[in-house]
Amino acid sequence: VTAHGSPARPGLATRVLEGDRRALARLLTYIENDDEVGLASLDKLYSHTGNAHLIGITGPPGGGKSTLVNEMIRAYRARGNSVAVIAIDPSSPLTGGATLGDRIRMLEWYDDPHVFIRSMASRRFGGGLAQNALAVAHAFDAAGFDPIILETVGTGQDEVGIASLALTTLLVQVPGMGDSIQTLKAGSLEIGDIIVVTKADRPEANDLARDLRRLRTLTLEPVVEHESVWQAPVLKTSAVRQEGTDALLDAIDKHRAWLEATGSLATRQREIAVAEITTRVQADLQRVAQRQSTLAGGFGGVIDGVIARQMTPHRAASALVSRIAPSGDVDKE
Amino acid sequence: VTAHGSPARPGLATRVLEGDRRALARLLTYIENDDEVGLASLDKLYSHTGNAHLIGITGPPGGGKSTLVNEMIRAYRARGNSVAVIAIDPSSPLTGGATLGDRIRMLEWYDDPHVFIRSMASRRFGGGLAQNALAVAHAFDAAGFDPIILETVGTGQDEVGIASLALTTLLVQVPGMGDSIQTLKAGSLEIGDIIVVTKADRPEANDLARDLRRLRTLTLEPVVEHESVWQAPVLKTSAVRQEGTDALLDAIDKHRAWLEATGSLATRQREIAVAEITTRVQADLQRVAQRQSTLAGGFGGVIDGVIARQMTPHRAASALVSRIAPSGDVDKE
Repeated sequence: VTAHGSPARPGLATRVLEGDRRALARLLTYIENDDEVGLASLDKLYSHTGNAHLIGITGPPGGGKSTLVNEMIRAYRARGNSVAVIAIDPSSPLTGGATLGDRIRMLEWYDDPHVFIRSMASRRFGGGLAQNALAVAHAFDAAGFDPIILETVGTGQDEVGIASLALTTLLVQVPGMGDSIQTLKAGSLEIGDIIVVTKADRPEANDLARDLRRLRTLTLEPVVEHESVWQAPVLKTSAVRQEGTDALLDAIDKHRAWLEATGSLATRQREIAVAEITTRVQADLQRVAQRQSTLAGGFGGVIDGVIARQMTPHRAASALVSRIAPSGDVDKE
Repeated sequence: VTAHGSPARPGLATRVLEGDRRALARLLTYIENDDEVGLASLDKLYSHTGNAHLIGITGPPGGGKSTLVNEMIRAYRARGNSVAVIAIDPSSPLTGGATLGDRIRMLEWYDDPHVFIRSMASRRFGGGLAQNALAVAHAFDAAGFDPIILETVGTGQDEVGIASLALTTLLVQVPGMGDSIQTLKAGSLEIGDIIVVTKADRPEANDLARDLRRLRTLTLEPVVEHESVWQAPVLKTSAVRQEGTDALLDAIDKHRAWLEATGSLATRQREIAVAEITTRVQADLQRVAQRQSTLAGGFGGVIDGVIARQMTPHRAASALVSRIAPSGDVDKE
């Protein structure tokens, strides 16, 4: 639709399907920028998606996630898989942590055409990240990568939320970070289909794994031996000793098989699609709201009533929303 | 508007204005729940607001913010001020940190009618927090509290964003947390009108303060001696030694005086009002989007096209948005 010259020429989608790595990289940039060229290519590619297994990884900063991902790439490559990684950089301007070293380590895979690592920066003030990460995953999926690993730092709702938009979510915990069990809030274990204790060479790893198993028993569904209930395993990995990664991949396979056998796969895929559409609708509507704020002195003038303390911000917002979304229901067309 | 029985009886606003603490507590609960009773009371109270100075405090978890707030309450009480504190609990389900001890410490002020501390929990998946915190601030403002302190843990965009919705924002940094300077990303210093190094009794405090002053010089506006430019001071406080808090309050007063003298106060108040309305409009529109997702099998049926890979989530979302917000412009009524 937009005039973009040569990069927009027909064939980007085709080249991605043919395994053209540069075309894929370009497509990802278009997608990240919400560029119509990328969206049009994705239209063509979308029927080729739905094959890849999407693995989410989240956990606290410094939890060894990037190292774990690197070990997983190595193990998947040994099994003959093509692996894509979407690494979401922390969005917090205050905390965050050094991911640069981790990224540099990932350069190890630079020359392997069957490994594609893409870093995405969290954007300021919500909107854009979750749905763009999933759109990038669709592109990887169409390009034949399987699995696709979505790695996020679990410092904010957004990041954790994104990691849970996967078919299998790994919750990473690391020993020796103080009372890590105590910082795990109620319910947070639930997002993990598999709980991974990294740096298992550390002496505290066994204690942490034991505590996590105990906590899981206390907080999650009662342990029943029934195939319809997934009992999240607690696994230990050590990059130093090169241990545990194969068992982790086996556990992921087992979870995938469980999803398929129980019909949970279709349910999960539907949930992810609903979440992707919802976040996208929300982001689009946020842009509408943002645009209003710049209109004629702020929301077409209502700001002055608020400044003069004649109308609360809440009333002003309600008036604006009823103008922006008159019906509020798509079924009342 | 809604039928609520006795709590909704006319007079809640009046009682708040008269200093009735229980009425204020009840109002805050209504506001937090987006209850119409609270919103109607706020309509009546809103013309009585605009007097309080709103102070935002943010910084990393474990940075001694709650202790600092406690010291500030003590100092403001010594100056005869009534102080309200809005403490936003961390929203991350994975990290967070123990705020319970801090809250318990604040019980010290339980019997002082001129101190009101309100904890607000971050909610899951955006929306609600920023605007509700500001609405709570309006209630405190009408009830005669001045200053109002808005304390958030700087782990996520939301929390940092909320703290910056203040007239004076304190950015807290703590010595001895490793390379804390390095975790400060570019631009994050800008949100602080005053930079506070807590736990100044620690040996690393002087180094941290020096580094922060250097970083500020490198990243912020060049230091010019002109009244129109606010040069964010770097201050040190120590709760152990009971030092630095009075100087901090003086710096806040100085910043307030600067805001008034330069006309920045009106600009800042307008920015805060725009931000409050914008986040509220966004939250309302998010609710609209969320509601759509539950309609007739998900967004009135479009989800099936996405599941069948006939339509990308992006196209589905665009179609939905154009139905929800047909014009997308409030000025085209």
